[in-house]
Amino acid sequence: MDSGKVKDVGILAMDIYFPPTCVQQEALEAHDGASKGKYTIGLGQECMAFCTEVEDVISMSLTVVTSLLEKYQVDPKQIGRLEVGSETVIDKSKSIKTWIMQIFEESGNTDVEGVDSTNACYGGTAALFNCVNWVESSSWDGRYGLVVCTDSAVYAEGPARPTGGAAAIAMLIGPNAPISFESKFRGTHMTHVYDFYKPNLASEYPVVDGKLSQTCYLMALDSCYKCFCSKFEKFEGKQFSISDADYFVFHSPYNKLVQKSFARLYFNDYLRNSSVVEKDAREKLEQFSNLTGDESYQSRELEKVSQQVSKPLYDAKIQPSTLLPKQIGNMYTASIYAAFASVIHNKYSTLMGQRIVMFSYGSGLSSTMFSFKLQDGQHPFNISNIATVLNVSEKLEKRHVIPPENFVETLKLMEHRYGAKDFETSKDTSLLSPGTFYLVNVDSMYRRYYAKKGTEEATSAKSFSVKNGSLANGH
Amino acid sequence: MDSGKVKDVGILAMDIYFPPTCVQQEALEAHDGASKGKYTIGLGQECMAFCTEVEDVISMSLTVVTSLLEKYQVDPKQIGRLEVGSETVIDKSKSIKTWIMQIFEESGNTDVEGVDSTNACYGGTAALFNCVNWVESSSWDGRYGLVVCTDSAVYAEGPARPTGGAAAIAMLIGPNAPISFESKFRGTHMTHVYDFYKPNLASEYPVVDGKLSQTCYLMALDSCYKCFCSKFEKFEGKQFSISDADYFVFHSPYNKLVQKSFARLYFNDYLRNSSVVEKDAREKLEQFSNLTGDESYQSRELEKVSQQVSKPLYDAKIQPSTLLPKQIGNMYTASIYAAFASVIHNKYSTLMGQRIVMFSYGSGLSSTMFSFKLQDGQHPFNISNIATVLNVSEKLEKRHVIPPENFVETLKLMEHRYGAKDFETSKDTSLLSPGTFYLVNVDSMYRRYYAKKGTEEATSAKSFSVKNGSLANGH
Repeated sequence: MDSGKVKDVGILAMDIYFPPTCVQQEALEAHDGASKGKYTIGLGQECMAFCTEVEDVISMSLTVVTSLLEKYQVDPKQIGRLEVGSETVIDKSKSIKTWIMQIFEESGNTDVEGVDSTNACYGGTAALFNCVNWVESSSWDGRYGLVVCTDSAVYAEGPARPTGGAAAIAMLIGPNAPISFESKFRGTHMTHVYDFYKPNLASEYPVVDGKLSQTCYLMALDSCYKCFCSKFEKFEGKQFSISDADYFVFHSPYNKLVQKSFARLYFNDYLRNSSVVEKDAREKLEQFSNLTGDESYQSRELEKVSQQVSKPLYDAKIQPSTLLPKQIGNMYTASIYAAFASVIHNKYSTLMGQRIVMFSYGSGLSSTMFSFKLQDGQHPFNISNIATVLNVSEKLEKRHVIPPENFVETLKLMEHRYGAKDFETSKDTSLLSPGTFYLVNVDSMYRRYYAKKGTEEATSAKSFSVKNGSLANGH
Repeated sequence: MDSGKVKDVGILAMDIYFPPTCVQQEALEAHDGASKGKYTIGLGQECMAFCTEVEDVISMSLTVVTSLLEKYQVDPKQIGRLEVGSETVIDKSKSIKTWIMQIFEESGNTDVEGVDSTNACYGGTAALFNCVNWVESSSWDGRYGLVVCTDSAVYAEGPARPTGGAAAIAMLIGPNAPISFESKFRGTHMTHVYDFYKPNLASEYPVVDGKLSQTCYLMALDSCYKCFCSKFEKFEGKQFSISDADYFVFHSPYNKLVQKSFARLYFNDYLRNSSVVEKDAREKLEQFSNLTGDESYQSRELEKVSQQVSKPLYDAKIQPSTLLPKQIGNMYTASIYAAFASVIHNKYSTLMGQRIVMFSYGSGLSSTMFSFKLQDGQHPFNISNIATVLNVSEKLEKRHVIPPENFVETLKLMEHRYGAKDFETSKDTSLLSPGTFYLVNVDSMYRRYYAKKGTEEATSAKSFSVKNGSLANGH
């Protein structure tokens, strides 16, 4: 192996794409006849993005990868590995990665390792770890890795429907990164549970046990945090507490669970006698110190008190990560990285030298807590340029608010389109920005055709067609 | 990163499981009313394994992982990463890896990274690369990696049906391995094509364009070989030819394609003026030297002549890998590693110091050519012990030949069972060996329950049940 050749491997660049179409949670509440505040305060959500019939996880991936390469001026030939994390299955065998290869084939580069990683919302983290490990391995060829997290989260009518969302995130991986891994600090927890899964293969909707999934999430958080702390202590020779990280970023199915999660970390620190928990809070939490694990997950009182006493720290260390997950909804694999992008958007000028601890969770279940160290980077691969490219404010502002009725209609249409063949979409790209890819049709053999909305006018849309029998050769 | 800490990372141990139920291709030919020799000579296949209704990719994985850990006496706590390659989708979100976690949770180990890798038959190779890279990365914690390739290949009635198969393979990954990667010699070719895919989500059967898939396979082989040779030459300073490898192991959907593939490599060596192609063969191939790429893929004459002139080398360098793929059929992700296991079975006493070049292909498409170097290892992680554990002859001999009618009936039943809920299997384990896991039932929430056939009697079968709310903690 190339001993000591690389250092500070991590994220060099990022971009995010989310559909320009969204529904407001307050309007959805009213439409669904839910009690006022159920989605906005109960779930803590503000808005939910969704794909119309012209977008899907493949088109979003094509859009975000093209955008990242252009905005950071990366030659497609410079990519040596491309990995996708997704749980939105359009094909059970052909990876989303192979659709994205069209971009690289165009430039004659087919020597690109990596496929799709799958386990619910955790697939993107698996893809990220795989890309970073590749750069640190003896098989690394000196080129960049590229990670794509892409998902469209939709639910059957009912209480889970407002917890949908959609987005794609692309991350460029290499050494000397402004966002590098502290790879020795890592806690993983994986077990076999049925909290959220997709066994009904003909339907896009998952089977969800909401209550169980929330408990599994908090148990996994506890287990990962214990493991993370023990590894930190092993390598640093001192106890880890909340105060050792500047921000915590959680996978965010809905904001309320993030609030509960941070309170749970705080309760962990209390149980571990960490000095971060002050006298006043300590006294309030004492009544819960003898709860069994199970009791503590079920106690509404503990939830309330721990959230209350940790509120100032939540505002400082969590709040900056909540913007995009609240505005877009659950983006499954992209969710945690959209939360991370929110921190960059909100705090880019003060992040140098700071530590950000991440908690990635995928039902089924797999989960890992890991740590980023942020530092200066060389343009274009520096934090402030990443914030500029992410362009979060403008992307949010340019969205179109769709009435709940039309959102519900779209989902109904998509129920028929899921797994279907031989149809054309409306090709209505009026709401899409120039440069956005969209689905044109699916032929009688289920082959999917996409086009790109022209930067000048839609008629110049460039078609990415299948090129069977003319495989480009990268060598 | 832990510079220079590890060397010779690769495969320390292997085990294979395949269903004890199989159908003979000669009988299937007759049953299907196909012309005599169509499956046996035309496809080059002898026998085809298939899962009855009590087995599936999850049960086969549980069986092979349990077996590997027992036979090599590896403590489940010593596994730090577990990756699965599969294209047989039972759940679109929950990874097969999470089902296998039951084995590790039992011993209190939940700190196990890795999820499922997906792209047709290539997923196992992606999982293998990921595990190897992890051991070479700074996040490695000193424990073993474990790769599982598990698939059940079934096809709708028609010409593709005899190209099915089923198996699961487990491989233990770590440093100082008897089967180590020559990681600098690697050629990858990935593109977007629709040669074989699974867009009909409600059906277990793929959509296949057999002719296109064969051409894609050979094009990918050419491209990977060129890339592999150019990397070899860059690092070794000399031309690579067939003579530089002792064996070539190909992904084997059916043996005939392996025959064509080796002939194609030979033709490549001829075009590259390699001295491995002798005067006599050179003269016979000269007539094809001006064919375009496309023409050369379609020329039956070239196929015939190149197979004929390369026959002695095929017998020496390929034949030993063909045993299990011919006897079991296409095992998708497990296929190439079953071919590799066949070489170990046939040649274990003479492999020290030898090079084996592997060609992994997954439709859609992704493909890589890579290289293993074999060397002595320390018991139990040495080649002859791996051959003993694989126990290929006995496993083949103990199989039960099932009449084609019953095979067809099983597939019909499984068409209804695919994606279904609320059913019990026959629990008939009479054909299974002790220690084999089997499916007991799928409940009304699609949750799957497995049991293990007892080593003494079936009634002592140990049930692996879902343990919601009692997540074991590995720390």
